[in-house]
Amino acid sequence: MTQSFRRIALARYLRGLPEPEDFSIVTDPLPQPADGELLIHNIYASIDPGTRARLSQGPSYLPPLKLGETVGAFNLGQVLESRNPRFQPGDLVTWTCGWAEAGISNGRGYLARITDRSVPLAAWIGVLGIPGLTAYFGLSRLGQIAAGETVVVTSAAGMVGATAAQIAKLRGCRVVAVAGGPVKCAWLREELGIEQVVDHKAAADLGAAIAACCPDGVDVLFDNVGNASVDAILPLMRMNGRIVVSGQVGDYNLAGDQVHGIRNTRPFITHRVRMQGLVVFDDLREFPAAQAELAGWLKAGKLKYREVRYQGLEQAPSAFRDVFEGRDFGRHLLQLAPEPGDAAA
Amino acid sequence: MTQSFRRIALARYLRGLPEPEDFSIVTDPLPQPADGELLIHNIYASIDPGTRARLSQGPSYLPPLKLGETVGAFNLGQVLESRNPRFQPGDLVTWTCGWAEAGISNGRGYLARITDRSVPLAAWIGVLGIPGLTAYFGLSRLGQIAAGETVVVTSAAGMVGATAAQIAKLRGCRVVAVAGGPVKCAWLREELGIEQVVDHKAAADLGAAIAACCPDGVDVLFDNVGNASVDAILPLMRMNGRIVVSGQVGDYNLAGDQVHGIRNTRPFITHRVRMQGLVVFDDLREFPAAQAELAGWLKAGKLKYREVRYQGLEQAPSAFRDVFEGRDFGRHLLQLAPEPGDAAA
Repeated sequence: MTQSFRRIALARYLRGLPEPEDFSIVTDPLPQPADGELLIHNIYASIDPGTRARLSQGPSYLPPLKLGETVGAFNLGQVLESRNPRFQPGDLVTWTCGWAEAGISNGRGYLARITDRSVPLAAWIGVLGIPGLTAYFGLSRLGQIAAGETVVVTSAAGMVGATAAQIAKLRGCRVVAVAGGPVKCAWLREELGIEQVVDHKAAADLGAAIAACCPDGVDVLFDNVGNASVDAILPLMRMNGRIVVSGQVGDYNLAGDQVHGIRNTRPFITHRVRMQGLVVFDDLREFPAAQAELAGWLKAGKLKYREVRYQGLEQAPSAFRDVFEGRDFGRHLLQLAPEPGDAAA
Repeated sequence: MTQSFRRIALARYLRGLPEPEDFSIVTDPLPQPADGELLIHNIYASIDPGTRARLSQGPSYLPPLKLGETVGAFNLGQVLESRNPRFQPGDLVTWTCGWAEAGISNGRGYLARITDRSVPLAAWIGVLGIPGLTAYFGLSRLGQIAAGETVVVTSAAGMVGATAAQIAKLRGCRVVAVAGGPVKCAWLREELGIEQVVDHKAAADLGAAIAACCPDGVDVLFDNVGNASVDAILPLMRMNGRIVVSGQVGDYNLAGDQVHGIRNTRPFITHRVRMQGLVVFDDLREFPAAQAELAGWLKAGKLKYREVRYQGLEQAPSAFRDVFEGRDFGRHLLQLAPEPGDAAA
């Protein structure tokens, strides 16, 4: 590591799909940690569709990123310097930094030491990280799934969706996974063993296709897509059904008036439907217990995932675009540096 | 009471606003109660917008009324004959029967003896009945309101909305009431003492008009209108905001594609918004305690209401139309027989 580092800054606000010109690479001098702070060198950065929300100037309630600021991401890194007694140089941590080779943490918020090296390191920002935890707490705290219930998961070939589909199955639910195209659907069926898979690209009417798999209706919709899928599935909700708004990837790139409007709201009253959005950091204190359960399933071969890896900071914008274009599927991950051989041993 | 009774039957499925031809008056012989049953003579029947939901052939998930069946309503009546040990002839009860002069109860479900005659009898199917209880449990169980929070109530001049606005105020909340037209707004301000009232008919942009009253946002939206108001107010929701779907009076008469679509769903994630529909019968066991608290406020002059009374069964269809046309406001009530002078004394 030299005395400078690179980061990807927002160069202009996005309109529709991300374009290369929306981003710029900036080189900054390596900062020095103040008292209580840490300097962290990033090994991985996530490529998440949710990042899109703050990259355009939308309605005023969500402050957009300022131009020139680093694009946000979840990271896995190694402590280079520590002026915080809870961390030592060499510690591997997960944290929130961005598309950047290094950064300063104030030692608070989402910053956790990695304790279990018996799983692949990158799993800690994937199936054991924010996407896996989103699936875990979305199904438990908001979805309150119970064995025997029918759970529909949209965008099920993505990391959040695939983890949710598998957790619901492990909890004894009937799972219907929705994904686009034969390759993703085959992976869900053959690799993950999800028995009921709906290809939304092949279905003229998504609601009807899901209804055919769920003759008795849907108890929980774990949705990653947004308004169009919520609207299609609302009429299938059973009494006391729950809709977990985990992501809105289908809506992020649309202007306000292009977004699909949810019209089928009568089941909110007739079927006591509850719809709630998830921000997984509300469950921060429960992360270690959830990660232990997820790691157990992972090591037992009961929880699988698929990774799409990009090498080098400069790949971030095109990787980000790939996420929305659905070129590949699974966890999109940016590798910024080699993994340390035995740093945490 | 003779050996026959009259009832209003559904003659054809409604399209849009209710028309006189949608209903017919049927005379039937007075039925005899079987073992466990009661014959009840109705004194009042409610005229509720929510009744509209089952009067048209909509999507399959909600079974519509069959043609020839009695239009549903909440009733207050007196037991004529009882073959149920829990009730005696002369008992005054609230129950679910319909627009009918009499009917048979099986003794189960929503059937409760009126215990407190120190309030007006009709209050038992108004502010102490389903509308008042809807306001009460919508704000408590779903809205989880707390003192100091900002609560927006739509259709606030209706019985449910007006009760909700007053309960929220009694619980120490800041209340913004939304109603249409200067007469309703003046009543809310002057009679009920609601300080912040928005006239949606005078506001070009409902969201902006409410935002002007709520510079720090909205904690709870208690909505009686439907998708258009939910969509307008969603961007104002504060962190962990709750939307209580109490009624959808603005949508009941619209065909599916005419219904407003909710587009502003991003706050579900960014602000952890929870939206949930209420069916007040889920709180059946808690009714007596809630009614005692409501009756206390009523007797202390802290809870007010406005009644629009129609006389005679044949008035039901036009009264029902009046509800949707907003000709008057408050509890619309159909009186079918005189109140007994001292029956429960």
